[in-house]
Amino acid sequence: MRDVNVGIVGLGTVGGSALRILDENAAEIERRLGFRLQVRAASSLEIEARSETNGRLLTRAWQEVVEHQEVEIVAELIGGTTVALEVIRGALGRGKSVVTANKELLGLRGAELAQLASEHKASLNMEASVAGGIPILQVLKEGIAGDRIEALYGILNGTSNFILTEMEKSGAPLTSILAEAQKRGYAEANPTADVEGYDARSKLAILASFCFGVHVPTEAIFRQGITRLLPIDFAYAHRLGYTIRLIGAATPGPDGLGLSVRPVLVPEKAILSKVLGSYNAIWIKGAYGEDTLYYGRGAGKPTGVAVVSDLMRAARDLRHGSMLRAAAFGFWKLQEVSRAGIESQLRPYFLRFLVRDRVGIIAQLASVLAARNISIDAVLQEPSAEKDNLPFVITVEPTSETALAAALEAMQGLDFLCEPPLALPLETGLSR
Amino acid sequence: MRDVNVGIVGLGTVGGSALRILDENAAEIERRLGFRLQVRAASSLEIEARSETNGRLLTRAWQEVVEHQEVEIVAELIGGTTVALEVIRGALGRGKSVVTANKELLGLRGAELAQLASEHKASLNMEASVAGGIPILQVLKEGIAGDRIEALYGILNGTSNFILTEMEKSGAPLTSILAEAQKRGYAEANPTADVEGYDARSKLAILASFCFGVHVPTEAIFRQGITRLLPIDFAYAHRLGYTIRLIGAATPGPDGLGLSVRPVLVPEKAILSKVLGSYNAIWIKGAYGEDTLYYGRGAGKPTGVAVVSDLMRAARDLRHGSMLRAAAFGFWKLQEVSRAGIESQLRPYFLRFLVRDRVGIIAQLASVLAARNISIDAVLQEPSAEKDNLPFVITVEPTSETALAAALEAMQGLDFLCEPPLALPLETGLSR
Repeated sequence: MRDVNVGIVGLGTVGGSALRILDENAAEIERRLGFRLQVRAASSLEIEARSETNGRLLTRAWQEVVEHQEVEIVAELIGGTTVALEVIRGALGRGKSVVTANKELLGLRGAELAQLASEHKASLNMEASVAGGIPILQVLKEGIAGDRIEALYGILNGTSNFILTEMEKSGAPLTSILAEAQKRGYAEANPTADVEGYDARSKLAILASFCFGVHVPTEAIFRQGITRLLPIDFAYAHRLGYTIRLIGAATPGPDGLGLSVRPVLVPEKAILSKVLGSYNAIWIKGAYGEDTLYYGRGAGKPTGVAVVSDLMRAARDLRHGSMLRAAAFGFWKLQEVSRAGIESQLRPYFLRFLVRDRVGIIAQLASVLAARNISIDAVLQEPSAEKDNLPFVITVEPTSETALAAALEAMQGLDFLCEPPLALPLETGLSR
Repeated sequence: MRDVNVGIVGLGTVGGSALRILDENAAEIERRLGFRLQVRAASSLEIEARSETNGRLLTRAWQEVVEHQEVEIVAELIGGTTVALEVIRGALGRGKSVVTANKELLGLRGAELAQLASEHKASLNMEASVAGGIPILQVLKEGIAGDRIEALYGILNGTSNFILTEMEKSGAPLTSILAEAQKRGYAEANPTADVEGYDARSKLAILASFCFGVHVPTEAIFRQGITRLLPIDFAYAHRLGYTIRLIGAATPGPDGLGLSVRPVLVPEKAILSKVLGSYNAIWIKGAYGEDTLYYGRGAGKPTGVAVVSDLMRAARDLRHGSMLRAAAFGFWKLQEVSRAGIESQLRPYFLRFLVRDRVGIIAQLASVLAARNISIDAVLQEPSAEKDNLPFVITVEPTSETALAAALEAMQGLDFLCEPPLALPLETGLSR
């Protein structure tokens, strides 16, 4: 079969890794495909002088890649939501299939771009946008296509998982772990997207669309970061047989799909609790296939494998004339998800308080909870010398997000609280 | 697009599960494919009277399924290597794609059947033959197609993993755990295929062909069962920071691919050591994507999902005219694997002895090892009252399978040994 020519826009960590794999691993790729995958053009703002050697154009101008006569598939790896949008629209509009790692853009424009791809009989491939080294979208699209997914829980942000597992191991506070991680290059100078859950939220939106065929506006996803967690929270969690992880969860309920990204209590028996450091993992419960877990690196160079595998898939479909083979998924279209999905689901919660100790605190908190029909399950207190900043935990029986939010709001006026209570759900659904 | 009609031969655990999913989950499957997947014929020796209702034929005769005019894809789910071979040949010979869970038959005839499929422009799909609930073949074929795989380690037999993790937890001997497992239906009445590693060996042969493009005669795979393991072995392993699992391993070395199924020492830090009970898992190290793990149920009803997902894939390729889309893999053909691959690879080993205690034992064993250039790393002995059946462990520096086998053979004449030494490799390659 005729070779397939590809173009790469963006040669940063992911683009550079993809280019290196395509060059170094070319023989293996050809053996698998039955034809060659040739990089005919690549663009990057790091390229100083336009050059063309051995049939490969290197340029600063992305337009030259997208418009290149020979380029049949374009990989958009510059990120951001402005130029990247032009790149993808430009390629799809010319009937060229696209491979992208751009989760923010897909979160904003995924539905529109999928539609555009379909109209031009091209494919839009996005494996690299979620959990880079883990081929989770391919698993959902074809691997376990026959199953009906009942729940998905994922560790989708490596930086946050690194911070939480370090805090668990060392007992150091978040700020010092984060500073160390930044020094070593494990965390961005501006860590907000990672530690506040925005990055994981974009990924969850894409995962949910592949699992449940829904279009998810990112605002419909409940989001809570990890910055308020203290080392003492892990001690309380362990007493209950749990640990704490930042989890992206998708769980169908009576009011539709519930979507959330937040720190949750994960049972220590659950395999997801064994995911340490900067690894990502996705745990899926199927109606027929029971539970499966997919684990690997979530970012950096391993993401290059996802880009190359997507290019191979798009190239196969191009040469075999099956570009719309998986387009019939109908993803991004079926239904919108609203906040009601998560707000009405019932979960037990872990409430951690920091108080100025005095008589009657439990009684006052208990009466606020009772007024919202929330039952206390247990009150836990680790020994502590800090009477002016005393931590303790109340666990409550399953309640709705809405009732809990109302109770937390009613607690705001209580003068013995040093800060608002921290509420984390106990994810009992994760047990086998 | 036109609906695709399928036939199922065999309605046991896997076939019955697949049929149930195809019926119950039909709407979801149609939404994903853009057309319906209809079961037009199914056969089983459990069916007493031939019937045809709502366009579905139920019969005792598999030939009626394979030869059915409307059936376009055939699922062979009867197992065994005689009739099943006729079923698959019959279907492929008619240009009908095949889905099968038959690892034994693929181990014996995989190359020939893949060739036959290719000649008739049909596809041969075998996701259900390895680690039932885990879509590992799809991951290897398309998910991480761009990577070059450097090593694969798998827990490929749920029964053995259940026995080992129970032994680790309870300290009970293998025979009593096996008897309990048989009583509860977790283990077969004849457990040989499971506990002696034959089942895992067939699966490893298929995995290796997908990873490395090689044809693997099962005899080229080093095989050792778990029946000689004692609870005390776990105590020694833990002292070294390891646990013990039955692992199917594929590791390239200087003399080609090394393949083995045997109990090995797995580092307690490795995620593979966290796989408990009857779960399966496959850990892969890629040259570019680093390490990934795939975890789930290995057998029983979850395998039905693999069958249905394969049927969906075959149906997609049929309607999109891309039957040979992934046939260019060239698997089963590239090269043969020989025993030399595993025999020359160097590994540290754990040697557990049971001896009648007396003076000079270590000296004698050390001199046998030294004569084969094998260096002792450590000698470990847990407290024991059994002087006539005393266990202790010697760990040795990396050595070849061949040198080690020679040393073990030379130890046969030593009268203080109650039984031949048990040798298990330390899989240091599994650490991150």
